[in-house]
Amino acid sequence: MRRQVVLFGDSITEQSFRQGGWGAALANAYSRKADVVLRGYGGYNTKWALFLLHHIFPPDSARPPIATTIFFGANDAALSGRTSERQHVPIEDYKQNLRKIVLHLKECSPTMQIVLITPPPVCEEGRHAYAKYSKSFFVTANVYKNNLALSHYVDWIDQTALYCRVMYLSLYGENAMKFPERTNEVTGQYASACVETAKEIGVFSVDLWSKMQETDGWQKKFLSDGLHLTPDGNAIVYQEVIKIFNEAGLSADNMPLDFPHHSEIDAKNPEGAFQQKCF
Amino acid sequence: MRRQVVLFGDSITEQSFRQGGWGAALANAYSRKADVVLRGYGGYNTKWALFLLHHIFPPDSARPPIATTIFFGANDAALSGRTSERQHVPIEDYKQNLRKIVLHLKECSPTMQIVLITPPPVCEEGRHAYAKYSKSFFVTANVYKNNLALSHYVDWIDQTALYCRVMYLSLYGENAMKFPERTNEVTGQYASACVETAKEIGVFSVDLWSKMQETDGWQKKFLSDGLHLTPDGNAIVYQEVIKIFNEAGLSADNMPLDFPHHSEIDAKNPEGAFQQKCF
Repeated sequence: MRRQVVLFGDSITEQSFRQGGWGAALANAYSRKADVVLRGYGGYNTKWALFLLHHIFPPDSARPPIATTIFFGANDAALSGRTSERQHVPIEDYKQNLRKIVLHLKECSPTMQIVLITPPPVCEEGRHAYAKYSKSFFVTANVYKNNLALSHYVDWIDQTALYCRVMYLSLYGENAMKFPERTNEVTGQYASACVETAKEIGVFSVDLWSKMQETDGWQKKFLSDGLHLTPDGNAIVYQEVIKIFNEAGLSADNMPLDFPHHSEIDAKNPEGAFQQKCF
Repeated sequence: MRRQVVLFGDSITEQSFRQGGWGAALANAYSRKADVVLRGYGGYNTKWALFLLHHIFPPDSARPPIATTIFFGANDAALSGRTSERQHVPIEDYKQNLRKIVLHLKECSPTMQIVLITPPPVCEEGRHAYAKYSKSFFVTANVYKNNLALSHYVDWIDQTALYCRVMYLSLYGENAMKFPERTNEVTGQYASACVETAKEIGVFSVDLWSKMQETDGWQKKFLSDGLHLTPDGNAIVYQEVIKIFNEAGLSADNMPLDFPHHSEIDAKNPEGAFQQKCF
């Protein structure tokens, strides 16, 4: 059975197999070496993630993952008293929850390589534009949905994205546009808390919040709606995670292929290659 | 444990998690519902695939895949007496090998949905241009490789692609350019054989060879080097496979989420949602 690398996180993980996604790029890099397994839960914070922990990482697994990325915080950092309040987790609880997740994984496997990833920076202007766009979209969709099946109307767009937008507007309505539900400053505090926690418990971390802001124009270059990632933003996550996997002794280049490379197979005696090399 | 969809095939499967890849698109569509597992083996034909069958699909598995795509033929159809001769498999053997693969999978699980995919069409001109490019690339790489680490020099290109090109040229040298190693006509015969076999044994098939040629300019629109797929070519495979999965009762839209959607979680009583819905 192939070893696994699990990507555990919120929507930024859930969307990581879309066009240009960092999860798909990892799956490609570890092809024939390890399976990259998607466990992304849009909208989740660390508090809700704890409910999934024992299901996704059963303590008695005979083959626990060789590595796991833990990528939460974008929702924990939603502001109290604003439209996304229900996702808010106080910063001390966020740290405590990350610790619980890591300790559980270490119990599953003391050799598992664990990487905490901080939330990306937030572009408040981008979030506002997204809320406005969602509103106009919602109105248009409402006009149409009595006339024809919504699924036909939205053939040309990502249905999941539509669902999120409709949910968002129906939950928050007009208020969604008035006050930002996340700020870059507060998300930065969660990012620091994530990096500190990783240091305290001795696991790797990617400070994505800081890394992205090193590049001019990060707001549009890396973020599609002020929060989620563009293909360029995905590339940053991929590069940072693969760098850490390489440091941690999990370089794909150094892992053996599962079966012979085709050039090693003698067409007249194929059995030979397969007898020698079947992992 | 999450159900699995396995993608079993040659390089066109192995590369299916690259930018715009059909495998990644499937993984995204089945996110939170099934794991899409990559089992692609560049350069392999159906004869060599048989050696992997019992390793990848152990007959005694308690949780066999719910669906498998079988995507071989591009290498089987390599011409006898040309540079890729070692990959050639006679057409009757190709059919017989496909049958063996399907019968093995049916033994693993009689309810598994199986989709045979034909090789894509071949653009001989594209293959020739690729061989020429490979030659000039090989010469350049040789000049540089004594001066600096190859891995630094090729930072800007896909190292796997380089490896294949170097292998290709070192194996076949000058001859690679003289005669086509594959023709569209012969590959079309393998495609027909694949579709026939699927009908005979009662499994689904995608006639990719015919489907792609319905579009004007398929040679460059769908093929990057006369054989492998562009993002547009990948999109065709994705659309055709998802259409069959939908017909076969495996529509992602109709499969339940593994855990509650975040909007179903009551922030004051999150336990409630998780008690009700944990698959």
